[in-house]
Amino acid sequence: MRVVITGGGGFLGQRVARALLARGGLAAEPGAAASLDELVLLDQAFPAGGVADPRVRQVSGDIGDSALLKRVFAPPTDAVFHLAAVVSAGAEADFDLGYRVNLDASRLVFEACRQQPRPPRLVFTSSVAAFGGTLPEVVTDATAATPQSSYGTQKVLGELLVADYTRKGYVDGRTVRLPTIVVRPGKPNRAASGFMSNILREPLNGEPAICPLLPDAKMWILSPERAVDALVRAMEIPADAWGWNRTLNAPGITVSVSEALSALEKVAGRECVARVRFERDAAIEKIVLGWPAHFTTARADRLGFKADGGIEEVIRAHMRAMAR
Amino acid sequence: MRVVITGGGGFLGQRVARALLARGGLAAEPGAAASLDELVLLDQAFPAGGVADPRVRQVSGDIGDSALLKRVFAPPTDAVFHLAAVVSAGAEADFDLGYRVNLDASRLVFEACRQQPRPPRLVFTSSVAAFGGTLPEVVTDATAATPQSSYGTQKVLGELLVADYTRKGYVDGRTVRLPTIVVRPGKPNRAASGFMSNILREPLNGEPAICPLLPDAKMWILSPERAVDALVRAMEIPADAWGWNRTLNAPGITVSVSEALSALEKVAGRECVARVRFERDAAIEKIVLGWPAHFTTARADRLGFKADGGIEEVIRAHMRAMAR
Repeated sequence: MRVVITGGGGFLGQRVARALLARGGLAAEPGAAASLDELVLLDQAFPAGGVADPRVRQVSGDIGDSALLKRVFAPPTDAVFHLAAVVSAGAEADFDLGYRVNLDASRLVFEACRQQPRPPRLVFTSSVAAFGGTLPEVVTDATAATPQSSYGTQKVLGELLVADYTRKGYVDGRTVRLPTIVVRPGKPNRAASGFMSNILREPLNGEPAICPLLPDAKMWILSPERAVDALVRAMEIPADAWGWNRTLNAPGITVSVSEALSALEKVAGRECVARVRFERDAAIEKIVLGWPAHFTTARADRLGFKADGGIEEVIRAHMRAMAR
Repeated sequence: MRVVITGGGGFLGQRVARALLARGGLAAEPGAAASLDELVLLDQAFPAGGVADPRVRQVSGDIGDSALLKRVFAPPTDAVFHLAAVVSAGAEADFDLGYRVNLDASRLVFEACRQQPRPPRLVFTSSVAAFGGTLPEVVTDATAATPQSSYGTQKVLGELLVADYTRKGYVDGRTVRLPTIVVRPGKPNRAASGFMSNILREPLNGEPAICPLLPDAKMWILSPERAVDALVRAMEIPADAWGWNRTLNAPGITVSVSEALSALEKVAGRECVARVRFERDAAIEKIVLGWPAHFTTARADRLGFKADGGIEEVIRAHMRAMAR
């Protein structure tokens, strides 16, 4: 089978690529794994020392370039992970860029799927940024999407398009609303959500970190390992199990800044935590505190999606991954 | 002030135009009505004997034509009723046309608003088609939009764009999710919802009518008079009263086919009702029965929006309007 990952040079895309290569394929029909023949990674840039495998083809370019997409989505393409996006603070800072990538380019991807001889499976990543405004205490599977950022809006637009293209039989789409991924490796990106990763990752690297929110600020989080599991699971679950509703709130855990720092202290000691300095940033605070931190995810739980066991487990998994 | 109505040649657009001309203006700030200087109606075609007034300018053309929109939205444009749309059965039959008009052209309209020296007020019409799939018994202000048609999807995409453009200060937008308008005058259009109007209007005209749904089928409806009131009210309510949530479920009444026909018999006699023949149409049934028929509309009620007193009142209002 031929699989495309947009945003394939990004941190999540690279991990999904590695997971697919290690598995050697994807369950295309219930129980039957089809073997991976070609894995196309599309992104603007790729990390040095990225995924190396004869089955992998890296394509560098602009996802908004329809001629490029035509080559990337050469038929038959069987499965697509559409992860490419301008992140939250970026889409808020540049309205037109956000719409160009997160809406217009997504539409090009969905149209490329529609042109395939058979409707490919497609996994699209959405976000807790789908929610905002006046929210119930706990967000459930029935809570209305009321995004309060351009990024969140663009993600919900994508969800709706995935659902409609799926209903029409143009694609077999599945949207997963991911919690904030913690601990994100590498350098901070423009995602407003990045701070929770920063205040864990940087001190573990012996570096200082700034926390732009107060200690009682809470986030709904998922580790990179669990996020990759969720995306692969979303791809492999049969269409019947998804049913008509193709948008899913993935499970996560609720973690406050102070809980995260306590766990960091337990795992790495007091001098490590002392590298975190609090310095409020109203712009980041406004975006992050607008996202819900408490969820019930009954549907995802039934479908076998899993959250992490706690923030301490998340930190230890990050340390193990970094040590490899 | 300068007001634009897209879909201004349509049945609702013409009525909104007449209402604005009769009022002579719109309350731009709380209590202060600004007088209407120019009213631009944009549509593909206009009815013979349409609105005639020196303040009115009719523009015929394609709403997807950005050069045309530039002329229509000559600055300063103060208020916009964006009513133009490919209707439900039309958008379902022609996927690309639906997206071209209901999404792409709507974006052009919102961009035209963004180019104004001051963010204009904009009223956008959405629909009960925003809802579908597995729904609660009664749809409330908190029910998630889960459209099950391309038309419904496109309407929700528009709602989200209106909300985001408003949040960014590019427009002062207000979306009203209208119930099915009954009794719609004129000939049937491609809206799947048209049948309820047909089975009332045609027999009153002495014509036969086909009912494609069973007698117990129910709809959430609003009369044209109340719909126009709702759109004008949506425009005049101050931004503060709207708050962050710019999408509103308008009030309506729940009416079954049998209730509608009983009321018709009461008002116009047995021989009138006898002109209705039942002939099930699975395609129309699937669309219409996917829409919710029971709502609570607490927020709209608080904001002063009004439903009709009952289906008999709706039929009598239609007869009075036809007699004028």
